[in-house]
Amino acid sequence: MAKINKNFQKLKSSYLSVQINKRTKAFQVKHPGSQIYKLGIGNTTEPLPGSVISGLQAGVDKLSDVKTYTGYGEETGDNRLREALSEKYSKNGIILDFQEIFISDGAKPDTANIQSIFSIDSVVAVQDPVYPVYVETNVIAGRTGEYENGKYKGLVYLPCTKENNFVPYLPEIKVDLMYLCSPNNPTGAVLTKEQLKKFVDYALKNKAIIIYDAAYEAFIRNNDLPHSIYEIEGAKECAIEVGSFSKSSGFTGVRVGWTVVPMDLVGEDAKKGEVNALWARRQVTMFNGASNIAQEGALAVLSDKGQKECNKIVAYYMENAQIIKTAFDNLGFEVFGGENAPYIWIKTPGKLTSWEFFDKLLDEAHVVGTPGSIFGPHGEGYFRLSAFGHREDIEKAVKSIEEKLKI
Amino acid sequence: MAKINKNFQKLKSSYLSVQINKRTKAFQVKHPGSQIYKLGIGNTTEPLPGSVISGLQAGVDKLSDVKTYTGYGEETGDNRLREALSEKYSKNGIILDFQEIFISDGAKPDTANIQSIFSIDSVVAVQDPVYPVYVETNVIAGRTGEYENGKYKGLVYLPCTKENNFVPYLPEIKVDLMYLCSPNNPTGAVLTKEQLKKFVDYALKNKAIIIYDAAYEAFIRNNDLPHSIYEIEGAKECAIEVGSFSKSSGFTGVRVGWTVVPMDLVGEDAKKGEVNALWARRQVTMFNGASNIAQEGALAVLSDKGQKECNKIVAYYMENAQIIKTAFDNLGFEVFGGENAPYIWIKTPGKLTSWEFFDKLLDEAHVVGTPGSIFGPHGEGYFRLSAFGHREDIEKAVKSIEEKLKI
Repeated sequence: MAKINKNFQKLKSSYLSVQINKRTKAFQVKHPGSQIYKLGIGNTTEPLPGSVISGLQAGVDKLSDVKTYTGYGEETGDNRLREALSEKYSKNGIILDFQEIFISDGAKPDTANIQSIFSIDSVVAVQDPVYPVYVETNVIAGRTGEYENGKYKGLVYLPCTKENNFVPYLPEIKVDLMYLCSPNNPTGAVLTKEQLKKFVDYALKNKAIIIYDAAYEAFIRNNDLPHSIYEIEGAKECAIEVGSFSKSSGFTGVRVGWTVVPMDLVGEDAKKGEVNALWARRQVTMFNGASNIAQEGALAVLSDKGQKECNKIVAYYMENAQIIKTAFDNLGFEVFGGENAPYIWIKTPGKLTSWEFFDKLLDEAHVVGTPGSIFGPHGEGYFRLSAFGHREDIEKAVKSIEEKLKI
Repeated sequence: MAKINKNFQKLKSSYLSVQINKRTKAFQVKHPGSQIYKLGIGNTTEPLPGSVISGLQAGVDKLSDVKTYTGYGEETGDNRLREALSEKYSKNGIILDFQEIFISDGAKPDTANIQSIFSIDSVVAVQDPVYPVYVETNVIAGRTGEYENGKYKGLVYLPCTKENNFVPYLPEIKVDLMYLCSPNNPTGAVLTKEQLKKFVDYALKNKAIIIYDAAYEAFIRNNDLPHSIYEIEGAKECAIEVGSFSKSSGFTGVRVGWTVVPMDLVGEDAKKGEVNALWARRQVTMFNGASNIAQEGALAVLSDKGQKECNKIVAYYMENAQIIKTAFDNLGFEVFGGENAPYIWIKTPGKLTSWEFFDKLLDEAHVVGTPGSIFGPHGEGYFRLSAFGHREDIEKAVKSIEEKLKI
């Protein structure tokens, strides 16, 4: 008699985009014909640049010719792409062998699946607010108890609020796995090298492993901020890093990401090389490689021309961020993020909850954003705005907010 | 103190291709310059036909233009593709709503991940020999005990040998989940409607769920054989079906597959619609959709022209199968499969084990195949040959076998 995995029943609500789409659709039904401005989901909008399109086209062309056609690739990724990523890291002074870099179909599946190689009784710490995937995948795996008062029992929440500049304090109890996202989704905060060092030192001391989500590193403008956790001494012994082509290169739909599992990484019961081998085994067993066409595109992204062209698009989104940030600043909001991340994190005015502000912004200015409470209990009273969008739409949204939002 | 998932340590050996590559490389080192003929892995070799290339190119072109660029798609797949698959099923008399069809990056990840929505204490049955992914993903999840005498404790093995024409008997004990693959990898056997009906009836009676891997359905030549489990009455209440563009359309590297979870499907503690919702939740949480370019290619595959062109390539591989089958027949081997599946399954001569025959075939004829024992204890004494390959290579391999293999 087939029974379901009951951990799914612990999951609070459906994934954030589903919930937001529901309310947005309800608004559209109530106000047919109204223009809605979307500053909600962090979804890229600008077309891929020429060099990347050429790379993808070459990838397709290869499949049309018997001499260049390829079927299954390595589950761990095209070695040329692994080498190219290794070279990208080396420009930043980080030496990684290509075998420490695993190509995947994106940072979301990787941050979702990485927990499966660790013990089911691992104590897991997450930032609060947090990208829901880290939390929900551990719920599904059975590492938490029930959902109560906005939290899953057994999960260690590290509050990130304006009081600590959205930089979490170290866990008060010993944890085994710790997810860190910097530049942060949703708060837009970026850990400095000094701040990150504290976490690395904590992990080394407690033999904990950090899962470091660097999907937004390309958005860092301040040269002093670290793009990779491996800029911190000792991090190779205690940190897995996840990277992505999604936001930096417009690959949200194309689907390529990567995960670094250094050979030096150790755990309580895993010697050097063993965690790397474990992730390789997971990928070989449960995954069949990212699309070969998409990987050709990713290779083009990493070319000199590709990097220049993609950086321009990143700069464009960051100009959007500046426009949104300035507008809310001028309206007297408390505004965070948006300097080194494509997310602007605002304090909701007065005593409005996140969802109350969502409804107010939608009703009055016809703008859709993301309620902070969706990201965890300490997201309550905050609101996320995404800098991804066409300039004209961002400007229209901002104008609508400036003209129609009742402060 | 981060600890690993110890279930990984139960896994017997690394994934089959890794093991075979190792021995093949060792042979190459010993015999430099020798031509090796590969009839091992089921990897497509023929270029994609024109209509599919056009579809993929259109997918790339869309991303170059701001008016047609798309970022994140639905995690459950492009609805046009879901509708097109629904239409494909309807031509076979099977009515499925598009919401019952989930697009993914392939049948391997789907057959690997589907177990995660079911209870950890589910009793799992597999055919023996079997595609290792079904087994190993359940080992990693913790549904089995240790590996002993070729089997994982707690797993129910359903022997498939020449004595039962590779059609398993029903489980003797009640099982909760049962993986069936037809056309079968590795044996090439295809379940008739009558045989399949027995499994459906068993599942309905015991409220078990069948995970039906139909990745090779396009290779069926005999019109009386079922292409889908939903051709059997009652199957929608007890079966999940996994499909793939990999082998039928040359998408092994492009990566698109799908999984059907009917709304009518029920479990011990899941009413109609609930298992469908569970899989949707899993995909939304842990996956971010198949590559948009690849999905455009899949749409082209399902066009009338695409189907005609892809069917020609399938026919080409099946002619390869006939060539291999005939050669081994003529050499006096006991030969199975290859009629409605791209795999030929032979009994090793004399008392040779699967690996002994692997070494013999490699040493004498320079041909790489796949030892049957890799697929489970009842694969011992058998050997798999794959019909995927260029005609000239297949012919050379067969000639080498005919001339050099010492019988």
